[in-house]
Amino acid sequence: VDGEFELIERLIDRLPPPGPRLRIGPGDDATVTEGDPAAVISVDGLIEGIHFELPPFELEDVARKAVAAALSDLAAMGAEPAELYVIAGLPEHLSVEDGERLFGALADAASGHGAALAGGDVTRAPALLLGITAVGVEPSGAPLVSRAGARAGDAVVLTGELGGAAAGLELLGEARNVELEPPVADALRSRQLDPRPRLEAGRALAGSGARAMIDLSDGLGGDALHLSAASGVALTIEMGSVPLQAGVEEVAGDERRAIELAASGGEDLELLATLPEEKLADATAAVEASGSALTRIGEVQSGSGVTLRLPDGGALQPRGYDHLRSEG
Amino acid sequence: VDGEFELIERLIDRLPPPGPRLRIGPGDDATVTEGDPAAVISVDGLIEGIHFELPPFELEDVARKAVAAALSDLAAMGAEPAELYVIAGLPEHLSVEDGERLFGALADAASGHGAALAGGDVTRAPALLLGITAVGVEPSGAPLVSRAGARAGDAVVLTGELGGAAAGLELLGEARNVELEPPVADALRSRQLDPRPRLEAGRALAGSGARAMIDLSDGLGGDALHLSAASGVALTIEMGSVPLQAGVEEVAGDERRAIELAASGGEDLELLATLPEEKLADATAAVEASGSALTRIGEVQSGSGVTLRLPDGGALQPRGYDHLRSEG
Repeated sequence: VDGEFELIERLIDRLPPPGPRLRIGPGDDATVTEGDPAAVISVDGLIEGIHFELPPFELEDVARKAVAAALSDLAAMGAEPAELYVIAGLPEHLSVEDGERLFGALADAASGHGAALAGGDVTRAPALLLGITAVGVEPSGAPLVSRAGARAGDAVVLTGELGGAAAGLELLGEARNVELEPPVADALRSRQLDPRPRLEAGRALAGSGARAMIDLSDGLGGDALHLSAASGVALTIEMGSVPLQAGVEEVAGDERRAIELAASGGEDLELLATLPEEKLADATAAVEASGSALTRIGEVQSGSGVTLRLPDGGALQPRGYDHLRSEG
Repeated sequence: VDGEFELIERLIDRLPPPGPRLRIGPGDDATVTEGDPAAVISVDGLIEGIHFELPPFELEDVARKAVAAALSDLAAMGAEPAELYVIAGLPEHLSVEDGERLFGALADAASGHGAALAGGDVTRAPALLLGITAVGVEPSGAPLVSRAGARAGDAVVLTGELGGAAAGLELLGEARNVELEPPVADALRSRQLDPRPRLEAGRALAGSGARAMIDLSDGLGGDALHLSAASGVALTIEMGSVPLQAGVEEVAGDERRAIELAASGGEDLELLATLPEEKLADATAAVEASGSALTRIGEVQSGSGVTLRLPDGGALQPRGYDHLRSEG
């Protein structure tokens, strides 16, 4: 097995070309179908033992994380969330009451982000699994943004801060001897257990000139590669410019490992986008008005591939978080 | 655990009421969102060890069956299939090449029914699992049909023949000492391995006056109960009028057990509908033109519940196929 990326790419290569109903076809964060309104659709699977463990995750954490990951794909298009559909597989060790708790948490998480839980299918399964279908709509007044529109000369921008979800997972995994203020440690753990999709920031970027956008579910390096390949351009990212969440460097042990967590740790659900330099000020103001922050972390060149430049002048090999490698 | 039906009903009771975007909300075969065209959306999970075993199923069989089951929910609304999205979980014993075979078969099955495979998510999993999201559209000229419109006095009608999928599963399960012509046995096995969603028949029924419709994925008894509860009416079904697929009685051993297979065996993917008696002739002609057959098997009364009348005057307890009971 060569890894999730290659497998998915090979599988998507086999899909027939999109017909007239698809404005944006397979291989982006979400598929867009023509209509009034245009529909934005993405599916996302979360499986016990692969994406989370029970414990440290509680059922409510799994529900929130699954909903956030699904909605993050809509955020990356600049879409407005509408409905969620859930396929739930419940292992024998979960009772009907556990199932009710799970669905209650899914409905709460959906409505907390302005979406409605609109249907589902429940069955027994060998492990807890959630398959979430997120359906969004094109907002009036702002275009949807694919991965494929980046142009040489664009600025590369990032919402929020990275490394928190990966550092939080390390804190949850074992009793670590890390000196952290309790609120800093709590914020890292909840970045892993309760990540937030950047829905408002995504719409702000779409409305202020973003040409290409992707959510960071596979890590900055891996997702930058996806965007670069879809757009047919090269990306250079200054890792020294990437904002790290407070405490990431302490959990990582040193600056170099902190940068690696930021580059390869998935699940932060921040957005990576490119836009013309002259739109940077407006986009920054719009994203700040949405409650997040925007940082210029690099630029787009003609060519191909991704360079992650280290503060010392070296470079990091871009790769993503790989759910097909064997894990825990 | 009290069974899948009760669990799903309890979980769906917890869902918030549908907003203005939903014309038909959770709890029907599919959800319908307003728009131009109206979208018809359903999700369906198939899991190794619960819904199928490898062998006797090959990967291609699993793909075809998953696509058919998902599209059957669209058939039950009278919708036109458009896109399918797939969440695939691949166990360690399957290679990347197996994943490619699976996705190739999924794309073939989708396009064979006029739908496009438009997106997906692939991950490792403890068993082979497929979560299919089927998206359809409202056809021009015929309304969509929910489970909730049956009225006292309506005829109860059924497409095709029942019992084949359940009898086919028995033939696949073990070397049975049943005397059957090879083509009859093959047809039973392929009813289990390669069931066909009644998409054209569903649109024909929707276009010729069907007031309520449901697909038979949980068995005639269980699905008749769903339709009866959603419509707030009683259904009486004459089991002696239900067409059985050739060979079902031989596999079942006697007539009584054959009727039980027809009443409780799921997966035949036929459609159960109700319509005014005066529409019966037109609907029968329309369904026959679609390549299927339509049989009047009962009638709708005021009241509640389902009566499955046996040819000898007795009655069968209606129940469905239950994927939350422990199975093989």
